[in-house]
Amino acid sequence: MWRRAAVNGPWLSIRLVNAGFRDKGNMSRKVHARRIEGIDKNIWVEFTQLAADYKAVNLGQGFPDFSPPSFVQEAFCKALNGGFPMHQYTRAFGHPNLVKILAKFFSRIVGREIDPMEDILVSVGAYQALFCTFQALIDEGDEVIIVEPFFDCYQPMVMMAGGTICLLYLILKCLEGCGPVLSSADWVLSPEELASKFSPRTKAIVINTPNNPLGKVYQREELQMIADLCIKHDVICISDEVYEWLTYDGTKHVKIASLPGMWERTVTIGSAGKTFSATGWKVGWAMGSGHILKHLKTVHQNSVYHCATAAQEAVAVSFQREYDVFGTEESYFHQLPIHLHEKRLRLADCLKSVGLKPILPQGGYFMIADISNLNVDLTDPSTKDEPYDYRFVKWLIKEKGLATIPVSAFYSPEHRNEFQKYIRFCFVKEDTTLQAAEDILRQWSDSK
Amino acid sequence: MWRRAAVNGPWLSIRLVNAGFRDKGNMSRKVHARRIEGIDKNIWVEFTQLAADYKAVNLGQGFPDFSPPSFVQEAFCKALNGGFPMHQYTRAFGHPNLVKILAKFFSRIVGREIDPMEDILVSVGAYQALFCTFQALIDEGDEVIIVEPFFDCYQPMVMMAGGTICLLYLILKCLEGCGPVLSSADWVLSPEELASKFSPRTKAIVINTPNNPLGKVYQREELQMIADLCIKHDVICISDEVYEWLTYDGTKHVKIASLPGMWERTVTIGSAGKTFSATGWKVGWAMGSGHILKHLKTVHQNSVYHCATAAQEAVAVSFQREYDVFGTEESYFHQLPIHLHEKRLRLADCLKSVGLKPILPQGGYFMIADISNLNVDLTDPSTKDEPYDYRFVKWLIKEKGLATIPVSAFYSPEHRNEFQKYIRFCFVKEDTTLQAAEDILRQWSDSK
Repeated sequence: MWRRAAVNGPWLSIRLVNAGFRDKGNMSRKVHARRIEGIDKNIWVEFTQLAADYKAVNLGQGFPDFSPPSFVQEAFCKALNGGFPMHQYTRAFGHPNLVKILAKFFSRIVGREIDPMEDILVSVGAYQALFCTFQALIDEGDEVIIVEPFFDCYQPMVMMAGGTICLLYLILKCLEGCGPVLSSADWVLSPEELASKFSPRTKAIVINTPNNPLGKVYQREELQMIADLCIKHDVICISDEVYEWLTYDGTKHVKIASLPGMWERTVTIGSAGKTFSATGWKVGWAMGSGHILKHLKTVHQNSVYHCATAAQEAVAVSFQREYDVFGTEESYFHQLPIHLHEKRLRLADCLKSVGLKPILPQGGYFMIADISNLNVDLTDPSTKDEPYDYRFVKWLIKEKGLATIPVSAFYSPEHRNEFQKYIRFCFVKEDTTLQAAEDILRQWSDSK
Repeated sequence: MWRRAAVNGPWLSIRLVNAGFRDKGNMSRKVHARRIEGIDKNIWVEFTQLAADYKAVNLGQGFPDFSPPSFVQEAFCKALNGGFPMHQYTRAFGHPNLVKILAKFFSRIVGREIDPMEDILVSVGAYQALFCTFQALIDEGDEVIIVEPFFDCYQPMVMMAGGTICLLYLILKCLEGCGPVLSSADWVLSPEELASKFSPRTKAIVINTPNNPLGKVYQREELQMIADLCIKHDVICISDEVYEWLTYDGTKHVKIASLPGMWERTVTIGSAGKTFSATGWKVGWAMGSGHILKHLKTVHQNSVYHCATAAQEAVAVSFQREYDVFGTEESYFHQLPIHLHEKRLRLADCLKSVGLKPILPQGGYFMIADISNLNVDLTDPSTKDEPYDYRFVKWLIKEKGLATIPVSAFYSPEHRNEFQKYIRFCFVKEDTTLQAAEDILRQWSDSK
C-alpha cells in the first residue's frame, strides 16, 4: 500500500488549505492559565532575534562563539558511538556515571560526602534546575529575597510558583572615591537592609556568585552574613553558581553550601554549559541535601523526566578528566579563566577608549558599562516608551551592528527606570569577534 | 597558585566530614510546595530501578534496545562536528532548521499550512511538551477529561497545574464474543458516557492515539465524536501522538487536528525519540494554532529555555531525509512498523503459548496481557498491600528475571483496584531479547 502511494506521489492526496488563511481562535474562553500572566516577555528571545535579524556582531547573549575543548567534544562523539544505551532513556534523576563523578568532584570542594543518588539532580541546563527548585519549594504567598541586579529568569520563575518577590539592591559603595576603574567588588549588600528583608514569610533567598550581569563574586564574609540570616530565620538559600570556575585577579569563589550549617539548607545550581563552554548541550544540576533535593526530583519527574543521555555521559567523562588534572595547568577550569582574563582586559580598555565606563568584573563572562555620558540622540519612535538602555541597545544593533544587553533587564520592572544607564557586554568570544566589536566602537567614536 | 596547589596535591587542603554523618534537615518548617503533594511516586523510577537491580530481561520501559537507524546516528555525529553553533544556544522555541522541516512535513499531513515560528514548540521530549501544555492551559479548578487506561504522567501533570481530573474508561465491548484473540480495537468509548463528562468546567480532554498501554488507534468516527464535543463545549484537545508512525494490519493513524474546526483547538504532541528510536535524545514537540502555542512557549521560556542544539539539528536532518523518501520502502516510518509487526506477532504467540491472554495492539509498541488465569502464589510480604499486577510484576522480576509493567499503573489510584489483571510488555526489542523473554516464560510454563 505504501508502495502504491509512492508511485502516485505520497503527498498528492493531501489537500493544502489556503496558506493565507489562519484561524485565530474560535475559542471564546480564556485560553491560558493565570500562572503565566505577566511573564510572556523574555529579554533573550527578543534581543537574540534582533541580533540575528541585523546580523550584528554579538556580544549579547552569554555563550561562547567557539567550541568546547576537544576532549569535551570527543567525549560526546565517543558517547554517541557507545551503543544503544547512549541513545535511549537513562536514570530520571541523572545518568549514573554523571551523578557519581559530580558527587566525587564536589565532595572535595564542599568538604563533605555528597551522595550521588540522593543529593544531586541532573537537569536540562542550570535553567531547568532553577525552575525545579522554585516549583518544588515555593508556595503561593511564600516570600523569596532576590538581590538586584539578578539573572532575569528568577522573577518569572518565582511568579510562576506563586511566590512573592522581596527585592534588595547591591549598592555602589563609593560613587566618587572608588579609584579610577570601578570593580564589581564596589557593589555591596547593606547588612541592615539585607536583615530587614527576612521575615517569617521568607522561604528562600537567591544569590548568584559570580553574579550575572555585574560579575560580583561574593566574599566569605558576605556569604557568612547571608548564612547567619538564613539559619536564624530558617530560610533556604538557592545559590546559582554557574560561573564558579571563572574568577579573575586572585578572587576566590566560595560555595555558601560549604559554610557551617548551610549544606542542609542550600540548593547549589551548576552548569556544564558554562563550565565546558557548551551552552547548547543543556546539562546542568542542582546539588544539596537529599531532604530538599527529593522535592526537586518530584518536579523533574513530572515535567522533563530526564536529560539527554549521551550529553550526560560526555559531561561525566569531561568531569572525570578535570578531576584527574585538577589544580594543574592542563585543567580547563584553570585554562578558561586565564584565557578570559585577557579578553576581559582587552574589552575594558576598548570600552574606556571610546568613552564608556566599564565596571571590571571579578568573575563570570560579562562586563557592564556606564553609557550615560555618550549622549546619543535616540530618535527611533518605535522604542520611545522603553527604558533608555533598551533604546540604546536597539539603536546600537540597528545602526552600528553591535549587539549587547540592556542592564535594566536585570532589575525588576518596578526598579527598571532607576537603572537605565548600563549595558552588558559578553566577552566569552573569539578575538576576531572582540576585534569586530572594537572596530565598530572605535569607528563610531572617531565619527562623533 | 594553581601550580603550587598541584604540587601539594590540589585536593589535600579540603577537609572531608565523616561520611556517615548526614544532616537531615535542621529546617523546622515544611520544605516543599503543596503542588507536588501526592505526585512523588513514579512507576518508571520504581520499576526501571528494580529491573536494573535484578538485571532482568527488560520488556518494561518503552525504549528500543537497539540504536536509531544509521542515517539518524550519522546526522547527530555530523551536527557535533558542525562548528561552535552546534554546541551553543539556539532559538528558545526550536532550532530554526527543525521547526522549518517539522512545519513542512506536517503541513502535508494535517492538510494546512503550519507556521514554523508560530505553531511549533520544540521540547525536551514529548514529556516536557505535555508539561508545558498543562501548565500553560490548566488553571486551578479547570476540569481535564482523561481516558483510562492512560500514560501515567497525565494525572500528576494535571494535578501540578491545579486541575481536576474527570475520568472515563475505555470499555471492552465484547467480554465473550470478540473472537479468539482480543484486539485493542475491542476497547471503545461509550458515546453517552463521553458526552456526560463535558461540562462548563471542562477545559481540555487528553487523548493518546496510538494509546499506551493498550495500543488502541482511534478511528476517524471516534475522533469525530470527540471533536464534535470539543467544539460544542469549547474545549481544547491535547492529542498525544508519539507513536503515530507505528500502526499495524492496515490500521490508519488519523490526526484529530486535521478534522474540520479542530486545528484551532488541538495541541498535538510528537516525539523524535519514538519516531527515530532515540528516546534518550529527548527531542519532542507540541504543534497547534499559534494562539494556543504562544502560551506553551511562555512556560517553556521560563522553565527550560531550549532543547539541546545538536540533537535538534540531527532530528531536522533526519526529518528532511524522511520527507524526501516518504511513502517509499526506504522510509524509516515505513520500515519500523514492518519490523515491529513481526515482533508483535512473535510476542503474542509466545504469550498465548504460556497461558497468557494478549490483547493485540493496533499501534504503538506495547502489548497488554491478561494474567488472571496464571494463579501464581504471591507470598512476598513486602508487597502485600499493592495491587495484584504490581505484586505479580515484582515477583516476575525477582523470581524469573523478566521485567514488565503493571497495567493498573495506567489507571487512576481510584480505579486501580478494578484493573489488576493485566501486565504490559514492550516489544521494541532485539530478537535476542524477545528470545530471552520467551525462554523465561516457556521454562516457567513447563515447570508448572
